[in-house]
Amino acid sequence: MARAHWGCCPWLVFLYACAWSHPKPGELGREDVRDCSTNPPYLPVTVVNTTARLSAIRQQMEAWNLSAYIIPDTDAHQSEYIGKHDERRAWMTGFTGSAGTAVVTMGKAAVWTDSRYWTQAEREMDCNWDLKKEVGITVIVSWLLTEMSTGGRVGFDFLVSFDSWKSYDANLQGSNIQLVSITANLVDLVWGSERPPVPSEPIFALENAFTGSTWQEKVSNIRSQMQEHKKAPTAVLLTALDETAWLFNLRSSDIPYNPFFYSYTLLTNSSIRLFVNQSRFSPETLQYLNSGCTGPMCVQLEDYSRVRDSVQAYVSGDVRVWIGTQYTMYGLYEVIPQEKLVADSYSPVMITKAVKNSKEQDLLRASHVRDAVAVIRYLVWLEKNVPKGTVDEFSGAEFLDQLRGEEDFFTGPSFETISASGLNAALAHYSPTKELNRKLSSDEMYLVDSGGQYWDGTTDITRTVHWGTPSAFQKEAYTRVLMGNIDMSRLIFPAATSGRVVEAFARKALWDVGLNYGHGTGHGIGNFLCVHEWPVGFQYNNIGMAKGMFTSIEPGYYQDGEFGIRIEDVFLVVEAKTK
Amino acid sequence: MARAHWGCCPWLVFLYACAWSHPKPGELGREDVRDCSTNPPYLPVTVVNTTARLSAIRQQMEAWNLSAYIIPDTDAHQSEYIGKHDERRAWMTGFTGSAGTAVVTMGKAAVWTDSRYWTQAEREMDCNWDLKKEVGITVIVSWLLTEMSTGGRVGFDFLVSFDSWKSYDANLQGSNIQLVSITANLVDLVWGSERPPVPSEPIFALENAFTGSTWQEKVSNIRSQMQEHKKAPTAVLLTALDETAWLFNLRSSDIPYNPFFYSYTLLTNSSIRLFVNQSRFSPETLQYLNSGCTGPMCVQLEDYSRVRDSVQAYVSGDVRVWIGTQYTMYGLYEVIPQEKLVADSYSPVMITKAVKNSKEQDLLRASHVRDAVAVIRYLVWLEKNVPKGTVDEFSGAEFLDQLRGEEDFFTGPSFETISASGLNAALAHYSPTKELNRKLSSDEMYLVDSGGQYWDGTTDITRTVHWGTPSAFQKEAYTRVLMGNIDMSRLIFPAATSGRVVEAFARKALWDVGLNYGHGTGHGIGNFLCVHEWPVGFQYNNIGMAKGMFTSIEPGYYQDGEFGIRIEDVFLVVEAKTK
Repeated sequence: MARAHWGCCPWLVFLYACAWSHPKPGELGREDVRDCSTNPPYLPVTVVNTTARLSAIRQQMEAWNLSAYIIPDTDAHQSEYIGKHDERRAWMTGFTGSAGTAVVTMGKAAVWTDSRYWTQAEREMDCNWDLKKEVGITVIVSWLLTEMSTGGRVGFDFLVSFDSWKSYDANLQGSNIQLVSITANLVDLVWGSERPPVPSEPIFALENAFTGSTWQEKVSNIRSQMQEHKKAPTAVLLTALDETAWLFNLRSSDIPYNPFFYSYTLLTNSSIRLFVNQSRFSPETLQYLNSGCTGPMCVQLEDYSRVRDSVQAYVSGDVRVWIGTQYTMYGLYEVIPQEKLVADSYSPVMITKAVKNSKEQDLLRASHVRDAVAVIRYLVWLEKNVPKGTVDEFSGAEFLDQLRGEEDFFTGPSFETISASGLNAALAHYSPTKELNRKLSSDEMYLVDSGGQYWDGTTDITRTVHWGTPSAFQKEAYTRVLMGNIDMSRLIFPAATSGRVVEAFARKALWDVGLNYGHGTGHGIGNFLCVHEWPVGFQYNNIGMAKGMFTSIEPGYYQDGEFGIRIEDVFLVVEAKTK
Repeated sequence: MARAHWGCCPWLVFLYACAWSHPKPGELGREDVRDCSTNPPYLPVTVVNTTARLSAIRQQMEAWNLSAYIIPDTDAHQSEYIGKHDERRAWMTGFTGSAGTAVVTMGKAAVWTDSRYWTQAEREMDCNWDLKKEVGITVIVSWLLTEMSTGGRVGFDFLVSFDSWKSYDANLQGSNIQLVSITANLVDLVWGSERPPVPSEPIFALENAFTGSTWQEKVSNIRSQMQEHKKAPTAVLLTALDETAWLFNLRSSDIPYNPFFYSYTLLTNSSIRLFVNQSRFSPETLQYLNSGCTGPMCVQLEDYSRVRDSVQAYVSGDVRVWIGTQYTMYGLYEVIPQEKLVADSYSPVMITKAVKNSKEQDLLRASHVRDAVAVIRYLVWLEKNVPKGTVDEFSGAEFLDQLRGEEDFFTGPSFETISASGLNAALAHYSPTKELNRKLSSDEMYLVDSGGQYWDGTTDITRTVHWGTPSAFQKEAYTRVLMGNIDMSRLIFPAATSGRVVEAFARKALWDVGLNYGHGTGHGIGNFLCVHEWPVGFQYNNIGMAKGMFTSIEPGYYQDGEFGIRIEDVFLVVEAKTK
């Protein structure tokens, strides 16, 4: 789903209006994007001046003897959505898109991002930054190899995941350039007091009615898995935020759309160490964690910032630490000696959480039923109101939120609603704003992809509708997308089959006529946790399908500049009856 | 396809006959397999006494300060079939099955092999060896961890592939056991003069009529790829035997079923170094390689045994060596410093060879047409003769070879013919022998999986037939296997799709009724090269499908103790016409 770089979309009218009284545009003839080819460069008002920031970070780089510094777009927990105070790349570059990596050398600075964000980057970055339109660690390293002299040191923020680090390392193999993990975050040093504060809302325990097991049962389960593991790990280190939230049945609101709180857990065979800002617990929650506990079942609270030192101290003993490499940040991975490391792709918490027990299944199903009520009411309302010409993408999305709000246990949307009419639905991850949106009309298709966070479950659903007369091609594409959804959801397959090897069943009806879609076919989903919950799904690094897993199935078709179709439902994997 | 460990198969009658005059069988009550639980142990005549060999290798292990030594079933080129003088595991253990790994410690010795070979192993191994029925590096390492004391050294033959080594290494991670690459082959030291000689048949050049490009064109093509590679390798190191055979259009007969010769190639930007036993070239072949050549296009012959030293000398310079990790033996990998290594899964020769040019396509097709004539003649002959009761599995297979021999350019079978009647067809890789075979009959199904090596191409085809009245279940299973073959071969899919993500289309018709098969769905095939040619196929480590690739499609169904069905054809990937 490549986004058109320069289109004729109505919402550009508003951009022009914004910049109406601005001085002469650059030679590119557009007022909304920078033009670094003129002298002086043309910069729209939306651009951030990064000269001082760059100069300050280069001073830091000198102090650390670095020729280059990599600024990723992640937080220390590899979260899908990140908090304001973790938006380091955005602050340093001006570019606020959710995907993109920045690299600074002594003479140059560049941002790599995909086509969805090219226009946005040109609107937000000043001419200190080159925009690189290929993405991936391989191309970043290629650029580093041409920019750096041999023997140079590349610093990277130690919050990137072990797997990302390995990929940088593999790509630098054969060069004489050294990859150095930097324990101080150089952006934070420069950001200083301007940096937004870390959230401090209370952390609360879920009521029993909304949990599948008590945290004590979960801890005992994970400890049994440690005992059964052939490498006999003595501890599990949890770094993803949903791991700790799930394990203790605790929630808060640190991350947009995700009810999580900043935390790590070091669960050993004899202790439970929860790294978190302790002042955020009420006496009741402290009691929930530790009332009447004995020894290995008592939760020791340690400060969030202490995790690295604490893991380092722990691994000085005769221990073995079990981690999931996809979520463990390099800064924690590197303190564990190789011979004390038990590394799988995912921690046992991730794997266990993926299979919902019968109570969790009931909870998740109940939340989807209530959610469906809201979506159906919305679709009925659209059918009445769109022909009147009174609904736009943004007001529609707002009304849908309002309808969800009328359902029990709703706490907010589970991701930013994609409410897209006509050609906007062909843009990946398009969301309307109050200022920039399109009116819904009986003349074109409308796609709404949305979900809610409820105390009992997280939801995600996409519907594509047309209130007038779709074209023959639209009908055919819609039918084939629907066929894909049905073919996939009716498939009978052996237990433990990887989603990757069956996801083509959702595409075949489209492939038959030479059509396809450029995104994945589905993803796991949590109980008041992530809307995109790993490691369930249809990608190469997802785990095998098992009874009790939930996954979305969401084939689509996108015609650039014209329309977009996606039909998404959430399914539960159950045992099949065969002959 | 699990093989029944203890069955009632008619061919066991012959085994009993063989052992008729042998002393009292063991308590297991079978005369054909060992019984280590009795005192003294019961050993059938088929067993090899390995006591002296084991004692000798343990002396070698002591000299190298090893607590354990791993004996793989591969040769230095990761060949699918290996020559007699490379059958180290077979010689050391007595067990001659084609798959299985042996490990020797100071006190114990064990062989890991899958269910196809359990009975054979019990017939061939003496009581020095434990038979381990789980397979995979993970279980071998688990055993090592229980058998070895911490701090011990495990030696392994440096001819295993880099990828296997990495897997052992990853599994030993977290233990205090060290994996040591042993440059001398300990089995060879013990084997001594008893070891069969290395083949010395002439190496010959293919006529131009049977090649897709000259070797000079192929060398230039690979050198262009080196130049275009972002890491600018200065050399490509080729270790798989079909890489060198393909590159130079040379063939011989060192390996059963494969027209290869022992060799390595180090192709640099300024030289071509072919490591081979030079005495095997005729003056004409030497002229073919070097007549009128200049500088970088002249082939320098070096002795086969020199490769490690020669690569080591080469990497002392300012160079970068490009390898394919799946086929490079650890002993060559380890001499290349990390910063001089350019490692992909497959060498550029493997990737280039996978796509046949139009001449190669025509050649391969022509060989399949002639091959089909032989198979059709065979099927017609069967139809006439099976009802007379004059055909058995072995005589049938022999007659099929004879018919192939009447076709032009035939040089021999491309693998051992699977000619299997009734319940034998449910055994993976079953082949009849003159002594042990089953009569073909109109009362049961017959499966024949066979292929030929021709100067223009390699073939592989499976047909399953019944000359009487199959049961309703057999009809349904056959129909569903055929549906899988047709569904897969009619699939339209985007270029570069991985075979792994589409192979389930060959299974769906079976899955629908709860059936499946336990083997892969297909594999690439060569032009007078390997019958199972990597990296084309449907497994996770195969490369994306491209126009010009050939692959077999071979779904099946196997009912243990009753019958087996497989329908296999070879297909060419072509461009689809869609709407």
